[in-house]
Amino acid sequence: MKIALDMMGGDYAPLEAAKGIKQYLATPRAGVQIQLLGVAADVAEALAAVGLTGHEQLHIVDCPEIIGYHEHPVKALKGKPQSSISVGFGMLAMGKTDALISAGNTGAMLVGSMFSLKLSAGVLRPTIATIIPREGGKTGLLLDVGINSDCKPENLDQFAIMGTAYAREILGIDNPSVGLLNIGEEEGKGNMLAQAAYPLLKANTHIRFVGNVEGRDILEDKADVIVCDGFTGNVLLKMMESIYPITQRQGISHPYFDRFHFEQYGGTPVLGVEKPVIIGHGVSQEEAFCNMILVAEKMITTNFIGKLAAEIEVNPGTENEVPAP
Amino acid sequence: MKIALDMMGGDYAPLEAAKGIKQYLATPRAGVQIQLLGVAADVAEALAAVGLTGHEQLHIVDCPEIIGYHEHPVKALKGKPQSSISVGFGMLAMGKTDALISAGNTGAMLVGSMFSLKLSAGVLRPTIATIIPREGGKTGLLLDVGINSDCKPENLDQFAIMGTAYAREILGIDNPSVGLLNIGEEEGKGNMLAQAAYPLLKANTHIRFVGNVEGRDILEDKADVIVCDGFTGNVLLKMMESIYPITQRQGISHPYFDRFHFEQYGGTPVLGVEKPVIIGHGVSQEEAFCNMILVAEKMITTNFIGKLAAEIEVNPGTENEVPAP
Repeated sequence: MKIALDMMGGDYAPLEAAKGIKQYLATPRAGVQIQLLGVAADVAEALAAVGLTGHEQLHIVDCPEIIGYHEHPVKALKGKPQSSISVGFGMLAMGKTDALISAGNTGAMLVGSMFSLKLSAGVLRPTIATIIPREGGKTGLLLDVGINSDCKPENLDQFAIMGTAYAREILGIDNPSVGLLNIGEEEGKGNMLAQAAYPLLKANTHIRFVGNVEGRDILEDKADVIVCDGFTGNVLLKMMESIYPITQRQGISHPYFDRFHFEQYGGTPVLGVEKPVIIGHGVSQEEAFCNMILVAEKMITTNFIGKLAAEIEVNPGTENEVPAP
Repeated sequence: MKIALDMMGGDYAPLEAAKGIKQYLATPRAGVQIQLLGVAADVAEALAAVGLTGHEQLHIVDCPEIIGYHEHPVKALKGKPQSSISVGFGMLAMGKTDALISAGNTGAMLVGSMFSLKLSAGVLRPTIATIIPREGGKTGLLLDVGINSDCKPENLDQFAIMGTAYAREILGIDNPSVGLLNIGEEEGKGNMLAQAAYPLLKANTHIRFVGNVEGRDILEDKADVIVCDGFTGNVLLKMMESIYPITQRQGISHPYFDRFHFEQYGGTPVLGVEKPVIIGHGVSQEEAFCNMILVAEKMITTNFIGKLAAEIEVNPGTENEVPAP
């Protein structure tokens, strides 16, 4: 399998990316080829710094342009076709790689995912998810966390299927439960979106729906997968991400809050597109890069995209309807 | 002034309510009369237990019916006219008291506020707010946190005015700043609601609007008052409330997280109605009851309702338009 890794993305690129690769390769990884996208000289220097020069599983793909953090995603992708992100999506679309990982410009990664790649058959909207730390060492999954700020009930219904597949195949959660984020426990509660999504989730035979979950349940073990619109999810994710830095500043060191250090979870998968795409945090370091490669590998070896596609029902008349062959 | 206090509301009623009254009266409170609503024998027993029997500023109002926590709000209010909450709203509506406080059935308190009381002139929807603990000891205000799960842009614009008035008059924040909760910093970001609310807030001369704030800014000092729809706000509030119990279970004791013990802030005011109404947490104890009485007193002495009404513009054609005299 081939995994493309953007070496120029992230505050500590390319050195931390190189360290992450080294950590990943510390265990034998038969059959894995990593394509390193970036300014060739910089990438070679980083590889040399970690003692990986000439490694047979690593292949530098020279991408002389760099997309900065604050560049406008669409303009950057169009204006810099030789950037690592543009090249990566081109390779994905042409089948020259099996997965793309970047801790670079998040907007560009999302735009690339949505416009360079096809959606999986039947998927109405792609989505991104975040891991949630739970007490006792477990993890949950929350989605959407930002692509879809306004959602239709059908979107939440599909997020539940995609989140279930990711929790089961990638996070290793057996028979994951799904909760609908809401402001009350009973069916019928909530805003118009939640009220309309509830019966769809209840009738969905591809998931194990356990009903509404409230804000107080997010950090609890009430549902493995929690679905919500991308506005609410993004606000929640960013708030959760703000907690660890606060504990650092306050001098609070505790294993529970250490798990709010979101970097350790690697990246955020883009779900619903036809190829594995993983978006990392800008602050990604060694461990995060290693974890992102592991997730990409797992998405490929488990045939995650294929399994997900099998669970999404292709309804005639949906905007992403696939023409009959 | 007269303040009506529901003695039957809350998990630890009526004893903790009586303790809260004692704490409040430990400082001389000239001119304040407290009306104690509840089952007379129970209230008298609680007063006796804390040594307040026969106190000249306390007046028991016998309310032989009790609304339980899980009763349907509308049915309970209609079916139990002799309950403390029903009697309290009747007293408010008839001018027999100046404020109502209860830690009882939240739904009944909201329904009572919306259907027993008039809205302040020009107010489209009432709202409830929560205090947010900030690093360094400051507090912020987040609203709406649950009454309005679907909002129009105009609602958020009014929440900003109501939140500003509360922050200034009751929390003592000088010239409070207002932020719009959103998923990006720039104008134009966000869901349809946030995109439409931004220009209204920007043009609002009654507030000091500082732009969008993100999830990571909620616990930071970026804006004193943060406005959002009641779905997002409720989810955030309940998540924040869940953090303190987690720290307790995890054995984490730190002044920063102690401030996530929301009970200490007393109750949540219902803003936009013509009389002060304060809703307490079900777990309210002594300090919370004392704080709620203090907030009610402050809302009365500062003429909060009058000042708020002066800032809300009464636009012709709004659903709450007040007929010309």
